[in-house]
Amino acid sequence: MAPKYAPSLRSRLAPFLLSLQIGFVVVCYFYVEIESNVNGIKFSNLYPVFQDVNVMVFLGFGFLSTFLVRYGFSGSGFNLLIAVIGTQWALLLNGFESWYYRGKIRIDLNSLVVAEMCTASVLISIGAVQGKTNPVHLILMVLLEVFGFVLNEWLLQTLLPVRQLNFIMVLHIFGAFFGLVLTWILYRKESFQGFEKEKLDRKTELFSMLGTVFLWMFWPSFNSILTEERLSAVCSTYLALAVSAVASVAISALFSPKGKVNPAHFQSCILAGGVAVGVSMPAIRYPWEAMTTALAAAAVSTVGFQYLKCHDTCSVLSTHGLPGLLGWLIQLLLQIQQCDDHTMAIRFAVFHIYALLITLATSLTMGFLTGVLLKWDIWRPPQDKKCFDDQAFWKFEHLAVRK
Amino acid sequence: MAPKYAPSLRSRLAPFLLSLQIGFVVVCYFYVEIESNVNGIKFSNLYPVFQDVNVMVFLGFGFLSTFLVRYGFSGSGFNLLIAVIGTQWALLLNGFESWYYRGKIRIDLNSLVVAEMCTASVLISIGAVQGKTNPVHLILMVLLEVFGFVLNEWLLQTLLPVRQLNFIMVLHIFGAFFGLVLTWILYRKESFQGFEKEKLDRKTELFSMLGTVFLWMFWPSFNSILTEERLSAVCSTYLALAVSAVASVAISALFSPKGKVNPAHFQSCILAGGVAVGVSMPAIRYPWEAMTTALAAAAVSTVGFQYLKCHDTCSVLSTHGLPGLLGWLIQLLLQIQQCDDHTMAIRFAVFHIYALLITLATSLTMGFLTGVLLKWDIWRPPQDKKCFDDQAFWKFEHLAVRK
Amino acid sequence: MAPKYAPSLRSRLAPFLLSLQIGFVVVCYFYVEIESNVNGIKFSNLYPVFQDVNVMVFLGFGFLSTFLVRYGFSGSGFNLLIAVIGTQWALLLNGFESWYYRGKIRIDLNSLVVAEMCTASVLISIGAVQGKTNPVHLILMVLLEVFGFVLNEWLLQTLLPVRQLNFIMVLHIFGAFFGLVLTWILYRKESFQGFEKEKLDRKTELFSMLGTVFLWMFWPSFNSILTEERLSAVCSTYLALAVSAVASVAISALFSPKGKVNPAHFQSCILAGGVAVGVSMPAIRYPWEAMTTALAAAAVSTVGFQYLKCHDTCSVLSTHGLPGLLGWLIQLLLQIQQCDDHTMAIRFAVFHIYALLITLATSLTMGFLTGVLLKWDIWRPPQDKKCFDDQAFWKFEHLAVRK
Repeated sequence: MAPKYAPSLRSRLAPFLLSLQIGFVVVCYFYVEIESNVNGIKFSNLYPVFQDVNVMVFLGFGFLSTFLVRYGFSGSGFNLLIAVIGTQWALLLNGFESWYYRGKIRIDLNSLVVAEMCTASVLISIGAVQGKTNPVHLILMVLLEVFGFVLNEWLLQTLLPVRQLNFIMVLHIFGAFFGLVLTWILYRKESFQGFEKEKLDRKTELFSMLGTVFLWMFWPSFNSILTEERLSAVCSTYLALAVSAVASVAISALFSPKGKVNPAHFQSCILAGGVAVGVSMPAIRYPWEAMTTALAAAAVSTVGFQYLKCHDTCSVLSTHGLPGLLGWLIQLLLQIQQCDDHTMAIRFAVFHIYALLITLATSLTMGFLTGVLLKWDIWRPPQDKKCFDDQAFWKFEHLAVRK
Repeated sequence: MAPKYAPSLRSRLAPFLLSLQIGFVVVCYFYVEIESNVNGIKFSNLYPVFQDVNVMVFLGFGFLSTFLVRYGFSGSGFNLLIAVIGTQWALLLNGFESWYYRGKIRIDLNSLVVAEMCTASVLISIGAVQGKTNPVHLILMVLLEVFGFVLNEWLLQTLLPVRQLNFIMVLHIFGAFFGLVLTWILYRKESFQGFEKEKLDRKTELFSMLGTVFLWMFWPSFNSILTEERLSAVCSTYLALAVSAVASVAISALFSPKGKVNPAHFQSCILAGGVAVGVSMPAIRYPWEAMTTALAAAAVSTVGFQYLKCHDTCSVLSTHGLPGLLGWLIQLLLQIQQCDDHTMAIRFAVFHIYALLITLATSLTMGFLTGVLLKWDIWRPPQDKKCFDDQAFWKFEHLAVRK
Repeated sequence: MAPKYAPSLRSRLAPFLLSLQIGFVVVCYFYVEIESNVNGIKFSNLYPVFQDVNVMVFLGFGFLSTFLVRYGFSGSGFNLLIAVIGTQWALLLNGFESWYYRGKIRIDLNSLVVAEMCTASVLISIGAVQGKTNPVHLILMVLLEVFGFVLNEWLLQTLLPVRQLNFIMVLHIFGAFFGLVLTWILYRKESFQGFEKEKLDRKTELFSMLGTVFLWMFWPSFNSILTEERLSAVCSTYLALAVSAVASVAISALFSPKGKVNPAHFQSCILAGGVAVGVSMPAIRYPWEAMTTALAAAAVSTVGFQYLKCHDTCSVLSTHGLPGLLGWLIQLLLQIQQCDDHTMAIRFAVFHIYALLITLATSLTMGFLTGVLLKWDIWRPPQDKKCFDDQAFWKFEHLAVRK
């Protein structure tokens, strides 16, 4: 018989977190400083968009996974914890080059944004394994995945003559496939038939709806923050989100004999347009291109959700994976069509395909390695009965017995 | 006996949504492009305020109506669906003139804002009929109402020599009275004594509180986004919202023998100041004018809520209708008083009265026509027992049996 | 036996609120006007940050205290009510000098921000007495405390040759100790063993989590809005918040034999870094200083939460009081260390110590006076059984009997 209580994480979690954090502080003591040469106007222009991204990362992704009736606290709380570790870690790793040449890492709003983007990729992956992991797992995962993400970035920039990285593309595809490999390796028997506590509830669903709406609303900020042509990125993303909201409701209703909408479709597929357009953004010139992309993305996402059954808690595959790949494909097609010159088109296609392959390879390899590491019993994974249960990690005091 | 299940919307909802959305994409393919001549500074100044309005439209209005214990998903989800259809439709209709003269509709942040304003008017109307309609009704409604709104705009600008439309005024008054006519036509017997499932719950009320607070906080952005004198609009609206919050609590406590506050008063009447000041903004010069307007608006709104019993779910009459009319009256009085010249004053008064009459006439007519159309049984309205019930439209899987 | 119903506040609340509000309007009629000489760029730069602060004040603080299962409405609703009264009152009091010299009070975005900062101090204090007071108490409290805050500001600027007030410092320390004295004076027998209805619930905790996350996310805006070097303030606060999130989870897990995290620790201690860094901001130059401060603040806050048992509902002592004092100490140490000159260092130290003593003295005195006033039975405090109960102040209609 399984033990009644979840295994204690005291000897793992606390020392690990503290030493990690003190390590970050020590590195910052020696090598990190705040940019002093500030362009006030640029700061003021960027700051509100930065806060939008903040809301997406800490609130949006966090509350997206509160739909599980007994896992809301872990969903939102651990998301915040992982996000802050990931951002600090990404700040340091991204600053490696600057440290190498200048001896110092200078942080400004831009480096915070890039670090949050790396972290967002982790938050996507976490969506796939949520409920079946403990916080120690998640911390190991964020360390390895951010490392993998930065490594992938370095590989892309070294192996391919790309000047500007298509950050958004890498983020969605890397995050989704990393998470999928991980959930495949961490497979348990219950993963097939659903865990005992993997239930939802209308009120927790509303919290999740809140997270979704925040993600959805601020997605134009997410897609435009690192581009030069912000208006175009904002308008395209806005229209794409609109189209994918309409399309996913329609397709969800098609799937149901009574014409009902599945709230899970609503919550993951309305975001698909934002993902696909974000990935294909560099090639999008007209609103109809963004809208068609979003229409296709919503269709792929909803169909994927309905038929591809793999046990990823927040349906990462259909929200980020498939729309990301679709966006990649659409970017390829549009760019080739826009090229006047055959050589250029082939050149672009080769690079574009290589970029995807490198990203997928790094993502799958790192995901595999992380999975193997997390399989180890030393990290005290929760028993099947304690999966999807806040009680394993949170201690509620003064809980009202009956409501 | 009524059938046990709500009628299936599959054959209505899905094809309707898909053909509508594909239609929009096709029109965009031929006629819509993104403004390329961008003023970067203007974009950066407008974007944060645009996001505030976004939060109001998609989150604020959506969560405002989650107070119904079994209707939270429809309240927030259909709000989003309707808002994105409305915005796309308004973008096209508003671009008609530009299309006529230049063959193309150019979209930028400003046109998105104007389109969202048109949509906000629909979201107000929907508040009146929520729970008694199905999504097909709501889609028909958004199409007709946005058309009516744009028609009214065109009528005002053609018939009256106004240079700048008082957008905020039209929005609240048009939306509220359209919704009221509609709920009057869609009257059912249960509307009088309250529907079986028209209940609330403390936790769903808290979600509604959240929506209210977001609307309340960002109202200064809503009232200032289309004006030139933004500081003045922001300060006036801020003070007005403060005053109407205090006044509506006070008046609500006065109505109750035990001095208790009605949360419904709190949620609708604290917004009244924002509505009234928004409508009368062009004439407001001093803070005390905004504050007095808000005091009066909160009083009118609370008294209206208490005594005018009509079955509009989100009390649209007392939140938008009455404060809107009051704001119109105050603008009239203030403008007349500010005129040095009798002729000018009379001229203004005549135009101002005409503007209201035209708006009311268009609103009531369009509302009536829409109501007659929606009465048709072909749209499969929910039975009385299925009103105010998410189960009629949403299919929840893995619902926890007991909490 | 205690009476079954909470005492009616009708004769107290409504006239008090109305006369107060009408009083404000009358003063505004004579003396307040909106700044007409507007710097458009400054306005556009400040407005998004102002809205962030708005979200913190009205939503963050409000929803922070919704964790009580039966007190969510009072927590969020009265927070809004008190905040709008406090802001209006602070606007007038802060404008006193301008009125004295120029006969008019001019309001602009800056004066609204400063007024909200004064109000934030009151919202902190209210956290200490929430549930044990009625709205009339809270209104008296906001009037006296804002007066005390402005008085303290005047004392500091008159007695000490400080050019720029360390607003953030005064705000946290003044607010926390005012609230603590107040809760000490309002002590009831039940305060020791916990009130009957002082319970929480997982779903109300999630609302509280939402409030916490909003406070946490926008804290960089709060700390940077009144400074010149905004980038530095933003980056320092951001890193500090990250560190204190990690540290408070770690320390909370250390305290529990099973390594579980206490959600109450999570919700109050992750904010400690923001408080401490805000207070010591003028002396912070490097990221590691901010991070170390935050590490210490999270430790002090979590330990304080665990061992210092005083009955303050929202644990104001460990969220604002202790981190505030720690920030003060760290500012002292850093400034002394940064001085080249002994005389300067001593001079600074003396002023810094005086500033704290004056603030503490004013805070404790005003808190004491307010407490004595509130003890008076004329304000009809809720009985012990009605403490922490929305039903005493809110009248819910159409409540669903069973969910």
